[in-house]
Amino acid sequence: MAETDRAARADDEDEAFARIELSEGLIREVREALDEKNRVLAAALAEPLHPADLADLLEQLDREDRFSLVRTLGPRLDAEALAYLDEAVRENLVRDMGPAGAGAVLAQLDTDDAIDLIADLDEAEKRAILASLPLPDRAAIEQGLAFPEYSAGRLMQREVVAVPDYWTVGQTIDYLRTRPDLPDDFYDVYIVDPGFHVIGSVPVSHVLRAKRGTTVADIDLHKMRRIEASTDQEEVAFLFRQYGLVSAPVVDEEGRLLGVVTVDDVVDVIQEEAEEDFLKLGGVQESDVFQPPLRTGRQRLPWLAVNLLTAVVASLVIAQFEGAIAQLVALAVLMPIVASMGGNAGTQTLTVTVRALATRQLSTANAMRMLGKEFVVSLLNGGVFLVAGVCLALFWFGSPQLALVFGAAMVVNLLAAGLAGMLIPLLIDRLGLDPAVSSGVFLTTVTDVVGFFAFLGLAVHFLI
Amino acid sequence: MAETDRAARADDEDEAFARIELSEGLIREVREALDEKNRVLAAALAEPLHPADLADLLEQLDREDRFSLVRTLGPRLDAEALAYLDEAVRENLVRDMGPAGAGAVLAQLDTDDAIDLIADLDEAEKRAILASLPLPDRAAIEQGLAFPEYSAGRLMQREVVAVPDYWTVGQTIDYLRTRPDLPDDFYDVYIVDPGFHVIGSVPVSHVLRAKRGTTVADIDLHKMRRIEASTDQEEVAFLFRQYGLVSAPVVDEEGRLLGVVTVDDVVDVIQEEAEEDFLKLGGVQESDVFQPPLRTGRQRLPWLAVNLLTAVVASLVIAQFEGAIAQLVALAVLMPIVASMGGNAGTQTLTVTVRALATRQLSTANAMRMLGKEFVVSLLNGGVFLVAGVCLALFWFGSPQLALVFGAAMVVNLLAAGLAGMLIPLLIDRLGLDPAVSSGVFLTTVTDVVGFFAFLGLAVHFLI
Repeated sequence: MAETDRAARADDEDEAFARIELSEGLIREVREALDEKNRVLAAALAEPLHPADLADLLEQLDREDRFSLVRTLGPRLDAEALAYLDEAVRENLVRDMGPAGAGAVLAQLDTDDAIDLIADLDEAEKRAILASLPLPDRAAIEQGLAFPEYSAGRLMQREVVAVPDYWTVGQTIDYLRTRPDLPDDFYDVYIVDPGFHVIGSVPVSHVLRAKRGTTVADIDLHKMRRIEASTDQEEVAFLFRQYGLVSAPVVDEEGRLLGVVTVDDVVDVIQEEAEEDFLKLGGVQESDVFQPPLRTGRQRLPWLAVNLLTAVVASLVIAQFEGAIAQLVALAVLMPIVASMGGNAGTQTLTVTVRALATRQLSTANAMRMLGKEFVVSLLNGGVFLVAGVCLALFWFGSPQLALVFGAAMVVNLLAAGLAGMLIPLLIDRLGLDPAVSSGVFLTTVTDVVGFFAFLGLAVHFLI
Repeated sequence: MAETDRAARADDEDEAFARIELSEGLIREVREALDEKNRVLAAALAEPLHPADLADLLEQLDREDRFSLVRTLGPRLDAEALAYLDEAVRENLVRDMGPAGAGAVLAQLDTDDAIDLIADLDEAEKRAILASLPLPDRAAIEQGLAFPEYSAGRLMQREVVAVPDYWTVGQTIDYLRTRPDLPDDFYDVYIVDPGFHVIGSVPVSHVLRAKRGTTVADIDLHKMRRIEASTDQEEVAFLFRQYGLVSAPVVDEEGRLLGVVTVDDVVDVIQEEAEEDFLKLGGVQESDVFQPPLRTGRQRLPWLAVNLLTAVVASLVIAQFEGAIAQLVALAVLMPIVASMGGNAGTQTLTVTVRALATRQLSTANAMRMLGKEFVVSLLNGGVFLVAGVCLALFWFGSPQLALVFGAAMVVNLLAAGLAGMLIPLLIDRLGLDPAVSSGVFLTTVTDVVGFFAFLGLAVHFLI
């Protein structure tokens, strides 16, 4: 019976704890409410959502409905939701809210989130919003904007907990109990010298378990990694990931404590970084889901144009063999297969290589060994497709010579693909450029050219 | 002068803090030392490395050198390094170390890392290693192995800090100061009832700043999200990412506290998950950088085989127009361009769509609107390539009719590509399958078939 009580109590607590989850059903209800101009109902449905879920909901509404909902929520809107919004959506919303509305929301956010909110607006919009803020908030944001985009200085929050090294644990705890403006959450207490240079750190759990009389300097773990404010966010993400950090102090060039980067901000960077590589491999610069058609089309055009060029280069190769094709039209039927198999195999190698370079699993130290392995893999699968290709062409066209030429071209192209798939990103990386962006284009050029040339060339030599 | 002293002191501390960074130079030195059989030097070079960096170094050595280095390091090897190793590398190393060696290392690790170490070995190897462990460690690991792979139960560590709800902050702190077996780091104090059901949590920073007399129940933020041990790790990662969590309690079906998942474990999952989608788009199941050639070849084969089938399907379309090609060989030269432009444009759409589905930015709620947008984008870029294609074909072959057919086929294929690039992953996702894996193959089938059919079909109609 006590067991049932306990279970019932757990259920109640479940309700108390559970945020309303954002379901497709809820999204639909909100949209229907807005369609019926029942804004009060829509706001009531949206209000209990966790800010992150509210952001997801807002992203799925169109621009008009979105601003309508935000306006109806008014002060009940949890400002943090704006920090979670996709960039393009957020820009539009901030514009719709106007300087006063945006300013009111900004004042509630941590510095790094506030900076995200206004960083991409035009100068005039920025000035208008900043003008509506209280001076300390405005100063903090302007200082943050001074840091380069995508740097640690933009990721950090300025609110830190710092104590001198001669303080005891007792003094620290007393200080924390009386000071009113602590950060909401903090994971480390930083030890600073009189010049505010950060010289050590103690995780909060270690402060808690030490005796009151212990000096903070004595419980310093000497494991701290300082991050300069100008450090690129991808490097920050790498450090957090590599060394399992939860928070890290951000310093200026002198080593003075400016703020702290916490892992939840870095988690966003990690996801964005991985997403970026994914998008680049597919020929897209950034996720344009929420961007208007004209902007989307313009952004996608350059990569398509480059691919048109490489396709023309490949077709130029074909053009050299027009005579052969006119004589044996089966060549035109089979040649795309050779080219495309090379492209696929090469893409497999390319994908693994690009990822291995990003995670520092691949470097010049083991590159030769890996290249040798790719050669063997290409040989193995090349052998399989040699056999498959010969059988296919034999069955289709009945000519053993054609079948052998087809099979041989497959092997040649698969070998070229495997080597190119690794060499191209390695070389691009060596030149200090981003392999994810451009490797694919170079690779398909190679596999198309080699594929067509090998097949048609062998055909001319042995068949015609 | 005091400034110089301080700067000098900061430099000293820099050295005290700095781990030796893992550079290409250091990797080379270690390999040279091992080549010269100077294992003592190699070990001396490797020993000061942070475990994560040591793991990177080990990954870049070949199997023999790797074990040689590990054996020389002996007890100086920081066991954590093994937790950071790539799976394939780790398996080999654990095998080489044998049950006794592996057992000694296992005993030093947290439960979740220990489980990772032996989870993928055969039963016999597992039993041998477990037999060499002290009973409590062995029991904890076996309990962990009972959870499904890739679940919260495997990610969690069992060491938690839990107190009754009527305790005061003072009692909690005193307890923490006297208890010897606390976890190394913890971020929350969990509140449990007498049955060890978790009913609340308090971040450590909040415990620290509250007065000694406060009851822990009073400073509970009621923000806790419980995670059941059987929850898939991707869902865990989503929760951490979405709600900015640093740690979360893991419970059984009754709500009893089993352990805690901390953000550093989840960061690994987030990266792996994003990496997975990247690899799948490129036709690879997992990063096979460190796998032997035969296994790599075998894993890559199925996707290549499927692509061979789709290439054959596309070539079947070409085969229907053999007569036309024999008459006008320019068709064979231009047709790959039409097909490949469709493939590229479709891949752009596909990539954005797959990512938007994964990040819950796209759902049936806004799918129609997004589809309409893709249609417009395809029309815009289609128009550009209509013009480009007409000019290209005109310049190359001098025939206005051919040029117009070429341009028209381009537009048709780009339109088909844009729509297919979004519809295919949407449908696959609707069916509850993973769009990242299979969408690409279906897409290229569509763009190849439509491309060849549109171009050759229009050519037959208007040119021949």
